[in-house]
Amino acid sequence: MVWYTPDINRQNSIDMSYKSETRLTVRYAETDMMGIVHHSRYYPWFEVARTDWVKKSGYTYSEMERQGVLLPLTETQCKYHYGLRYEDEVLVTCRVSKLTVARIEFEYEVYRLPDMTKMSEGKTKHGFINAEFRPINLKKTYPDMWKAISDLV
Amino acid sequence: MVWYTPDINRQNSIDMSYKSETRLTVRYAETDMMGIVHHSRYYPWFEVARTDWVKKSGYTYSEMERQGVLLPLTETQCKYHYGLRYEDEVLVTCRVSKLTVARIEFEYEVYRLPDMTKMSEGKTKHGFINAEFRPINLKKTYPDMWKAISDLV
Amino acid sequence: MVWYTPDINRQNSIDMSYKSETRLTVRYAETDMMGIVHHSRYYPWFEVARTDWVKKSGYTYSEMERQGVLLPLTETQCKYHYGLRYEDEVLVTCRVSKLTVARIEFEYEVYRLPDMTKMSEGKTKHGFINAEFRPINLKKTYPDMWKAISDLV
Amino acid sequence: MVWYTPDINRQNSIDMSYKSETRLTVRYAETDMMGIVHHSRYYPWFEVARTDWVKKSGYTYSEMERQGVLLPLTETQCKYHYGLRYEDEVLVTCRVSKLTVARIEFEYEVYRLPDMTKMSEGKTKHGFINAEFRPINLKKTYPDMWKAISDLV
Repeated sequence: MVWYTPDINRQNSIDMSYKSETRLTVRYAETDMMGIVHHSRYYPWFEVARTDWVKKSGYTYSEMERQGVLLPLTETQCKYHYGLRYEDEVLVTCRVSKLTVARIEFEYEVYRLPDMTKMSEGKTKHGFINAEFRPINLKKTYPDMWKAISDLV
Repeated sequence: MVWYTPDINRQNSIDMSYKSETRLTVRYAETDMMGIVHHSRYYPWFEVARTDWVKKSGYTYSEMERQGVLLPLTETQCKYHYGLRYEDEVLVTCRVSKLTVARIEFEYEVYRLPDMTKMSEGKTKHGFINAEFRPINLKKTYPDMWKAISDLV
Repeated sequence: MVWYTPDINRQNSIDMSYKSETRLTVRYAETDMMGIVHHSRYYPWFEVARTDWVKKSGYTYSEMERQGVLLPLTETQCKYHYGLRYEDEVLVTCRVSKLTVARIEFEYEVYRLPDMTKMSEGKTKHGFINAEFRPINLKKTYPDMWKAISDLV
Repeated sequence: MVWYTPDINRQNSIDMSYKSETRLTVRYAETDMMGIVHHSRYYPWFEVARTDWVKKSGYTYSEMERQGVLLPLTETQCKYHYGLRYEDEVLVTCRVSKLTVARIEFEYEVYRLPDMTKMSEGKTKHGFINAEFRPINLKKTYPDMWKAISDLV
């Protein structure tokens, strides 16, 4: 019986929740005059990672929105350990840290490749709302979508 | 009869079309690692200038969209003479260079203050479409809006 | 003796630290397909507010960087109460919530005008570093700058 | 002798200049309230495509900048045929349309996958300058870099 998992999912070996992995290359337009990636630019990366996480459920974020489920942000947070530079290759991981019928929270880690130095880590909190911007109970309103998502958590 | 107009509207003294003036301060997030404003960031400025131009008509861009008139871009263009830096004060002018019942074109000039050096100049072309993304004849469909806009050109 | 201060600075009536006020108009490019301001776009606003806060010290952020003092972000955070829309007028306040010789923290509030509804609030944490990206003791290295800033806190 | 080349490089079968291909997925943060990709967001894509084009030379854009060669934009241009949506997969091609010892021009095409509908096309013009922002003759100053690039054109 092997417990040792040498990869990035190691710390999740117990909770077994799904952690997505997204690769990105730093764009010139994402840097600022300090020569590193502007702090606000990590949030669109988190969004890309979230998009990839959702895909695993069989749904896409686009499909969820078309069906009338929006996930507006209620809180964002990011800690920056080191600066990233233009053309750096990065790996962004994403997992769900909390899920209720009304809310979902994601956690992210940003690693520089190939050395896998952790450059930053963040969190976003979202509410489930409908197209009229009213809170919904995802489990009651969209039971299939709820099952697909909660199965990954 | 005085033809001399010592301000920025001078070159329009003959066509008398309305030229809006918008003041901005360069944001840190608008710079890139070259230390100057990223070339893509001028287009949101043009958009701000366009927003100000439209206001003069008595309508707002928001109100036009709410009434079902969208102005998607069909072409954008910008020439860069000098680079702008963080905290530079700039003046962006905007005027309509062409207007038909189906299309509108805007021209922009970006000046650094207070020396009024022309830093860049651009152009955007737009079609009038409705919320279903279909081309419309603005004059027929929204005669009041058409009059308000064409009166400024 | 009047304690009542009916303006936005009310809650600071005791600590008397300086709170800057910055007015912005929501740009079209700051919205996303949900129809509201994208969550990442609040951080460049905070940066604009920070820029305005620093000006009060007699220095500018640009001048600080030219003298070799950078303030890279070590943490960002924002809570979103309501969504903002294109052309909304907003007021962003900024104050320093913590200052040491090595670090500075800013707090922000975003209000929609003219009703002064609080739409969001955030925080950013920064370290003082030099052009070689090494931490510095601001008080020792730049005593004048230190005084100018700490006088406002 | 076969002239027919069924791929995207077809139209270049005669000039044989190198055309790079870059795949991207539309990010949520790249959309605006019209529900499509904001027109300014195509320019960072062109930049990513340019970065990929340069890689083929054996140099990287980062390496060129570290050696003291900058390519500031002197002109940008884009035509938009159709709007792109969140999560659309796109292919951006890039080729050099003009190269002199002082200047370089790139052309881009943006296709939606998998149907390969051409969504937009653009052009950027650049000057070769050094770290002091002075124009340089690339052939004289950096003969190896010049050879690596001109071999692809």
